[in-house]
Amino acid sequence: MRNALIYLDRDSDLNLQTQIRQKMVDGIASGAFPPGTRLPSSRKLAEQLDVSRNTVVAVYQELLADGYIISRQRSGIFVSDTLPRAGTGSGASDETDETAQLLIWRNRIKHDRIPKSDAYELPNWSNYPFPFIDGKFDSSLFPLAEWREASKLALSVGSVEEWSTGDGEADDPMLIHEIRTKFLTRRGINAGPNEVLVTLGTQNSLFMISQLLADRSVTVGMEEPGNFRMRGLLEDRHARVHAQEVDEQGLVVDDRLKGCGLVYVTPSHQVPTAVAMPAERRRALLDAAVKHDFLVVEDDYECELNYERQPEPAIRSMDGAGRVIYVAELAKVLAPGIRLGFIVANAVFIRQLRKLRRTLFSHPPLNNQRVAAYFLSLGYYDAMMMRLGKVLRGRRLELRDALSNMRGVPLRISPEVGGTTYWVKAPKQFNVDYFVQEAAQHGVLLEPVARYYSDANRAENCFRMGVTSIPQDKIVPGVKRLVELIRYIVRGQVEHLDSVTGQWLRGASLQATMSGATIYYEEVYGTLCTIKLHVDGTMTGHMSPDSDDQDSGTWRVDEERFYRRWSRWNYATESAYFIVLDGDRIKYFNKDRQIVDSAQIKIHDPEN
Amino acid sequence: MRNALIYLDRDSDLNLQTQIRQKMVDGIASGAFPPGTRLPSSRKLAEQLDVSRNTVVAVYQELLADGYIISRQRSGIFVSDTLPRAGTGSGASDETDETAQLLIWRNRIKHDRIPKSDAYELPNWSNYPFPFIDGKFDSSLFPLAEWREASKLALSVGSVEEWSTGDGEADDPMLIHEIRTKFLTRRGINAGPNEVLVTLGTQNSLFMISQLLADRSVTVGMEEPGNFRMRGLLEDRHARVHAQEVDEQGLVVDDRLKGCGLVYVTPSHQVPTAVAMPAERRRALLDAAVKHDFLVVEDDYECELNYERQPEPAIRSMDGAGRVIYVAELAKVLAPGIRLGFIVANAVFIRQLRKLRRTLFSHPPLNNQRVAAYFLSLGYYDAMMMRLGKVLRGRRLELRDALSNMRGVPLRISPEVGGTTYWVKAPKQFNVDYFVQEAAQHGVLLEPVARYYSDANRAENCFRMGVTSIPQDKIVPGVKRLVELIRYIVRGQVEHLDSVTGQWLRGASLQATMSGATIYYEEVYGTLCTIKLHVDGTMTGHMSPDSDDQDSGTWRVDEERFYRRWSRWNYATESAYFIVLDGDRIKYFNKDRQIVDSAQIKIHDPEN
Repeated sequence: MRNALIYLDRDSDLNLQTQIRQKMVDGIASGAFPPGTRLPSSRKLAEQLDVSRNTVVAVYQELLADGYIISRQRSGIFVSDTLPRAGTGSGASDETDETAQLLIWRNRIKHDRIPKSDAYELPNWSNYPFPFIDGKFDSSLFPLAEWREASKLALSVGSVEEWSTGDGEADDPMLIHEIRTKFLTRRGINAGPNEVLVTLGTQNSLFMISQLLADRSVTVGMEEPGNFRMRGLLEDRHARVHAQEVDEQGLVVDDRLKGCGLVYVTPSHQVPTAVAMPAERRRALLDAAVKHDFLVVEDDYECELNYERQPEPAIRSMDGAGRVIYVAELAKVLAPGIRLGFIVANAVFIRQLRKLRRTLFSHPPLNNQRVAAYFLSLGYYDAMMMRLGKVLRGRRLELRDALSNMRGVPLRISPEVGGTTYWVKAPKQFNVDYFVQEAAQHGVLLEPVARYYSDANRAENCFRMGVTSIPQDKIVPGVKRLVELIRYIVRGQVEHLDSVTGQWLRGASLQATMSGATIYYEEVYGTLCTIKLHVDGTMTGHMSPDSDDQDSGTWRVDEERFYRRWSRWNYATESAYFIVLDGDRIKYFNKDRQIVDSAQIKIHDPEN
Repeated sequence: MRNALIYLDRDSDLNLQTQIRQKMVDGIASGAFPPGTRLPSSRKLAEQLDVSRNTVVAVYQELLADGYIISRQRSGIFVSDTLPRAGTGSGASDETDETAQLLIWRNRIKHDRIPKSDAYELPNWSNYPFPFIDGKFDSSLFPLAEWREASKLALSVGSVEEWSTGDGEADDPMLIHEIRTKFLTRRGINAGPNEVLVTLGTQNSLFMISQLLADRSVTVGMEEPGNFRMRGLLEDRHARVHAQEVDEQGLVVDDRLKGCGLVYVTPSHQVPTAVAMPAERRRALLDAAVKHDFLVVEDDYECELNYERQPEPAIRSMDGAGRVIYVAELAKVLAPGIRLGFIVANAVFIRQLRKLRRTLFSHPPLNNQRVAAYFLSLGYYDAMMMRLGKVLRGRRLELRDALSNMRGVPLRISPEVGGTTYWVKAPKQFNVDYFVQEAAQHGVLLEPVARYYSDANRAENCFRMGVTSIPQDKIVPGVKRLVELIRYIVRGQVEHLDSVTGQWLRGASLQATMSGATIYYEEVYGTLCTIKLHVDGTMTGHMSPDSDDQDSGTWRVDEERFYRRWSRWNYATESAYFIVLDGDRIKYFNKDRQIVDSAQIKIHDPEN
């Protein structure tokens, strides 16, 4: 036996016994230890591997019991020769002649069945230092201890007996119960057990719904911008898509929805803008559904991540007539591992969906259904969502502050979005597509938004930044790198101190202008910030009326530059700027003599 | 707090602490313990529930940490009032007016998208005392300890980091490696990592393959009888189906396959007849594929349950040109809980399948992929299959013997099938459909076979009996009940001692006829059994040349009847029969004077 094959990794999660077993099974299966090979005695192997003899004895005992090895009295331990062995055939491997393959396979694949919608796929985010990507979760957020506990319970003898003998199309009754009593009631929804179907997540739910409700005879109302995956599913079904715009209350509801047989909507956090639909708009949508006789697919995306305020009840909860098909999934933080979602609709439709599901894959794995059921039943899910809400809220504020503090960047974010993303607007002349690619090459992942539009030419000049996949301490460095990149990209297009319009202030005139002045900034997220530079060298700043955020600090000038340091804002670091006065505006220039910001100024008139 | 809500089940798999936590979370979530409710002290609750105080303290500590309850100094413990609460809406519930629903939903569902194929669904087998159903496994066969061990490893910190950050379409590389090295090599198949796609089992694999390769322009060759689920998938795609018959070597290969673009075949154990395809037939199929330019879908059903002989290598292993798409799944004993399968094909096709899979459900849950990977890697899978093979072989022999020993039943089984089922033929006049229904009402589940035929009218008068779901000790009682039922059904149609043709032997003439006679039985599975009744009252029996099965026993007669007892056969019980001689045949009648069997007899001629 070539012991070199048994390399033990003392830093591994696997204990030594498990590693030895794994390597020996590998060696036997691969033929490296052929049948009949004599194995070293447990003492000898233990010495060679520098492990305790008991460890090797335990492995040998297991392998004996499983029939991998046999013990012959007085002659030792041997690899069993009655094991199934690797075959001798070859099959088509990677090395098969590709041309021959192409000849055989040409025109075989029905390309109309391959989804076209998803041309832009995000790169593997976990390889990037600054992944501002929404909907993927860094593994630190996974509720490991609680999931382990729930898994252990689901693997108890009684549980296994229940889920290992499922009859092929029923979901786990315990999970259905928990979804109804712990999830749906919180969304205001009463649903009977026959009105809930478990799926492999929202993508899977929408696939099945579009299979059964969409074809070329149906017009489907979609948000614009909206969920490109749903649009892709509808295109695959040849449905007509009506794109209806989104405002700050979500989908606009008006008579243009007439003619739709189905309307798809994401009211909790609109995909992709993250705006929330207020209760009146929800009611208006239901009224329109009755008036124009359409069904509603309510995709309750991120309904639980409403840490800014209490969420609105689901549209389904207001729906007396059963026109609403409700779709949600267990928090994405559990995916991609677990990925479970569900559909709530009337029992007739659920029955048909269940038939379709049987054809696709029978049912979502029942072991995971039972683990999720325990996870909900023990309150771990709620506890996780509370923790998650805190963490994500912290990250979101960190991102807002970082964007706000990085002056001189021509970006604006909407102040009032919820959820886990910012919808970031760039100036018209800024090429966002190019910028997103450049940023990725510098380790910063942003999400382009063109794919959310039915017509990419209508896309706003925006990108999205999410916080689910980036740890809090990476946010400020990531934004800094982003800002450096923007400065580099716009370096030729921005005002330079040497060619600026206005008056470059220095020394005494700088002191005189700034002393006692009031400065009106527009923050990156659109809020107005008013700063008062007091004559004694202190300063105070406060955000516009809606916010109680304020700070104080100190300012000074020298021969060339203006200096300021907030006690909290801007990470309490001192900044230095060259100052140019241009009418009622002042312009700030950094040490590279590039403009980084401008603001309105009201100069203190000591005469008044 | 209504403590009555906390009922502890001391026989539960869940420990008391878990039960108390579960019930308290339930009470809080449902509103039974409203926010602000004061909870009893840990000592008081412990007394009321008769558990140790530490148990209650531990639960309270967890709930405090999770924010479910709060502790106010000197006043006690209260339900938190900052928890998300059950909403107040109602939504459409079971009680919604069904008529209104029907009006809204009429004509909405695209019924052409609902699979039609699966009209006959087996009832929930686990409710029946004698489930002779194939492909469902009783939970005693689930490898609980090993699966738990693999689950534990998959939930180690390092593993979770890997699988919880998957990028949305890749499979677990560890599982791909294990499938390639532990499963495929044994089937003779070399496959590169890009040539393997993990699915949710064979149904899911076939769904995706038929989506991409079948439409109304394609003729697909199917076995007749054959897998009705595959036929259903093809019908859903409007493909033309060519039904080609099956003989004792599986699918017949001849020029009638010309014109097929695709041929679906189950060579390891043909579905449903369980015959195995020998190597020459496999080669002939590949030759035909080249000659007539078709692709082959090789569904390697139950490839691992070949306990009678070494399995043939997969067709894919002989396929130099990459015409074969190989489909298999991890042993069904792990389903329905885990349900993982895979497709092996050339990398181009796998890439397209992966795109389709993303639209359907992204990927099979990665936690289960990792558990399965460990399960394979530690050799548990092979060990399980060896154990399983032994158990199922034992059950299958038990069923064969039971059917063989229950004389007088007009059924025949094929002697040479492998796998886990018997294909049981009934006489033409026997109404199998009615019989299967009757048997189910008597607790015996059999599988009807009409659905395996493209034309139910062409179906053989057969049913299937499987052994995966019935414990060994239930097989004989189950067959006994079946035989009673058959006797009852055919009671009017069988020969009765009072109206028989031939000569009823008694006393001395019975003694003279039997003494020294040789009797030739045809067993229920078609084997010939030769019995010699020696003049000294002993007897010997042996099965026909192929078998070395033999036994000895004793016989005697009294005034009325013939008695015999084998030392092993027929469960070593004494049987008594009335005997009628009719030409060269003797007929056996039971105590109800009904015929139970007949055999050829060669009477001993003392003159020769």
